[in-house]
Amino acid sequence: MALYVQKYGGSSVADAECMRRVAQRVFDTQKAGNQVVVVVSAMGDTTDDLIALAKQVNPEPDEREMDSLMATGEMASSAILTMALHSLGAKAISMTGQQAGIQVDGTHLKAKIEKINPSRIRQHLKQGYIVVVAGFQGMNPDADVATLGRGGSDTTAVALAAVLKADRCQILKDVDGVFTANPRVVPTARKLDEIAYEEMLELASCGAEVLQSRAVEFAKNYNVVLEVMSSFEVKPGTLVREENKQMEQMIIRGIAADKNQAKVTLLSVPDTPGVAAKIFKALGNAKVNVDMIVQNVSAAGVTDISFTVAKDDLNKTKRVVEPLVRDIRATGANFSDDLAKVSLVGVGMKSHSGVAFKMFDVLAANKINIEMISTSEIKLSVVILAKDTDRAVRALHEAFGMGVRARQAKAAPKKKTARR
Amino acid sequence: MALYVQKYGGSSVADAECMRRVAQRVFDTQKAGNQVVVVVSAMGDTTDDLIALAKQVNPEPDEREMDSLMATGEMASSAILTMALHSLGAKAISMTGQQAGIQVDGTHLKAKIEKINPSRIRQHLKQGYIVVVAGFQGMNPDADVATLGRGGSDTTAVALAAVLKADRCQILKDVDGVFTANPRVVPTARKLDEIAYEEMLELASCGAEVLQSRAVEFAKNYNVVLEVMSSFEVKPGTLVREENKQMEQMIIRGIAADKNQAKVTLLSVPDTPGVAAKIFKALGNAKVNVDMIVQNVSAAGVTDISFTVAKDDLNKTKRVVEPLVRDIRATGANFSDDLAKVSLVGVGMKSHSGVAFKMFDVLAANKINIEMISTSEIKLSVVILAKDTDRAVRALHEAFGMGVRARQAKAAPKKKTARR
Repeated sequence: MALYVQKYGGSSVADAECMRRVAQRVFDTQKAGNQVVVVVSAMGDTTDDLIALAKQVNPEPDEREMDSLMATGEMASSAILTMALHSLGAKAISMTGQQAGIQVDGTHLKAKIEKINPSRIRQHLKQGYIVVVAGFQGMNPDADVATLGRGGSDTTAVALAAVLKADRCQILKDVDGVFTANPRVVPTARKLDEIAYEEMLELASCGAEVLQSRAVEFAKNYNVVLEVMSSFEVKPGTLVREENKQMEQMIIRGIAADKNQAKVTLLSVPDTPGVAAKIFKALGNAKVNVDMIVQNVSAAGVTDISFTVAKDDLNKTKRVVEPLVRDIRATGANFSDDLAKVSLVGVGMKSHSGVAFKMFDVLAANKINIEMISTSEIKLSVVILAKDTDRAVRALHEAFGMGVRARQAKAAPKKKTARR
Repeated sequence: MALYVQKYGGSSVADAECMRRVAQRVFDTQKAGNQVVVVVSAMGDTTDDLIALAKQVNPEPDEREMDSLMATGEMASSAILTMALHSLGAKAISMTGQQAGIQVDGTHLKAKIEKINPSRIRQHLKQGYIVVVAGFQGMNPDADVATLGRGGSDTTAVALAAVLKADRCQILKDVDGVFTANPRVVPTARKLDEIAYEEMLELASCGAEVLQSRAVEFAKNYNVVLEVMSSFEVKPGTLVREENKQMEQMIIRGIAADKNQAKVTLLSVPDTPGVAAKIFKALGNAKVNVDMIVQNVSAAGVTDISFTVAKDDLNKTKRVVEPLVRDIRATGANFSDDLAKVSLVGVGMKSHSGVAFKMFDVLAANKINIEMISTSEIKLSVVILAKDTDRAVRALHEAFGMGVRARQAKAAPKKKTARR
């Protein structure tokens, strides 16, 4: 008997009809001879509605109270799904994060799971129950509810899969899996059968919204096999797992684009030690995450320093940087928020050269200017003007032969077409 | 320093604006030099909305899951009110029923409070916090949430007031207090300054909706002084307390009407021992609450037995009674649901005779037929046709001199009118 952890996101459980459909899917999974633990998000826009309500009574609501408030969305959702399972004749029980034994640290709004005591879940699984756990939450050492931050329900699911030694952790979504690029932008984008944890991590941190980085990191650390799949149709999704020989050989696994980018340039900064440290320490103190940093070649003892931040953080960044300009004796600062980051990701890049050259070549041929470049062992990112994003993604997807048509064209002569 | 427990119902915290107003009221109470514990219901129609959603996925939802679901309404409400208090600069913290130490028995949907461990509340009060407790809920021995049934937040407030030895338990509502009769029916109805627990209990069980019987019973048992008052205006309400000499002398304290009445008559039942027992045992097993029972004078060895049940229970009652008719050799059964119960309540009735006569006389003068009569030491109830209810209440209110105009008319010559 296999043990599945299935996680359903907010849009998959948005209303009563969705709940009934999800209940059927869950029950079918159990009837196929499996034990099932389900993790649910809050229904539809519940979390956003609760946040909006909170802001109406207090523009800066207390974090502990926000957590108490938001956690109710997932609690309600788990009870409703359990009722829907009962109406199909299934044996099922809902559990809050606390009842599921999820213990978190003391940080509100982005708590970290510290320990899970799954004894109550195990006991109910043994008695034949489907266990429906409220995602996104746990109990902290003060016996308060704390939430896990964006994508927290994915993390709940992966963590439960790890501690229960589940055979698979399925993340059911309104997409069919992980694609080579966003199918809404690139019509030829192809669903991947498999992807390595590292690749998924890079894609997630570069703007692919299919999974949250934290959940993938958790899965990687505990070697949980993830499957990203459709909640609407029963068909295989994308497996996220340890890189292995059997994985399809691809230099580039996927392309991600992130339009939430802003760039700051400090002009003519004296090229003396400690200046960069001063800037980035101040930004760190203000909890601004800096992504890329580029320091142009120094001329005449002065240098331009550019860096990118999330567009949402630009105002905060301005408040930190503007008073620093005089302090570090720069001549000024430029801010722009009409930028995007486009990234190519693939473990195959480790052993292939020429990817960067080809990327720059393709962009140049399409008259797309590169503002900044950043690389890692398995990733290549460029910052370009936001308006060029979709064009860049499509051109790169095509040039690297990642699409459905491109691959079919190549594959056709060698393969027999399967019966439709 | 006095300790107040204040309870705000759903309509008092229906939206963000209501929340801000309630927060101001609570904060003012603290600033006047008191410690304050607040108990809140779910916002507006939240509970009804949650029940409707549950019924969409399962017409007969599991009771444990219903409790988990409904309890989220009060949890959210307590967090929002706490945020509103923070925005005024108040020190405040929300607590779920569990965090407030409220332990209940194992019955879902109408759990009973078994024990309260108020150490966390006490600790926060000592530190100057306003403690905002989610009403209507507690934790049962299985570490599950259970709710206290209709009016449960009132019970939470009274129980907390009892265990914390609060100076007063204020129930803040969208009415100004307890009235001699429903002011929507009787324009001259007068707000009472005080009422005895026993009177309040009888009024509540006879259809006055201002307080739930269970909360009053709890207050009586633990001698908690209740104050029913307006949540919209700051002015004295009605004190519910032990009967005492200082209380205004009134024979009739109030009139209640209950239109949720149905009557069942079993015709020509053989007048032999055990027949009544058979009927009411069967109804008890079906969890139908029987209110009044009247057995008409026996003639020729047969008798008619009539009883009343809540109108909501009439279908269930029919399913129990119809098969019994042949069983007990009755000739048939009549059912009617166009009835109401009108009750006069007052501890003064203990020492006054003639109340019943006057009541029947007033109704007769108004050509209102009496179907059934029931009495207790401090209560006189009649069942009449529902269509006559308001007319009966107004006539009795007038005849017993309970109204504002009647009293002012009498009082005017003796009193100087206060400056307006």
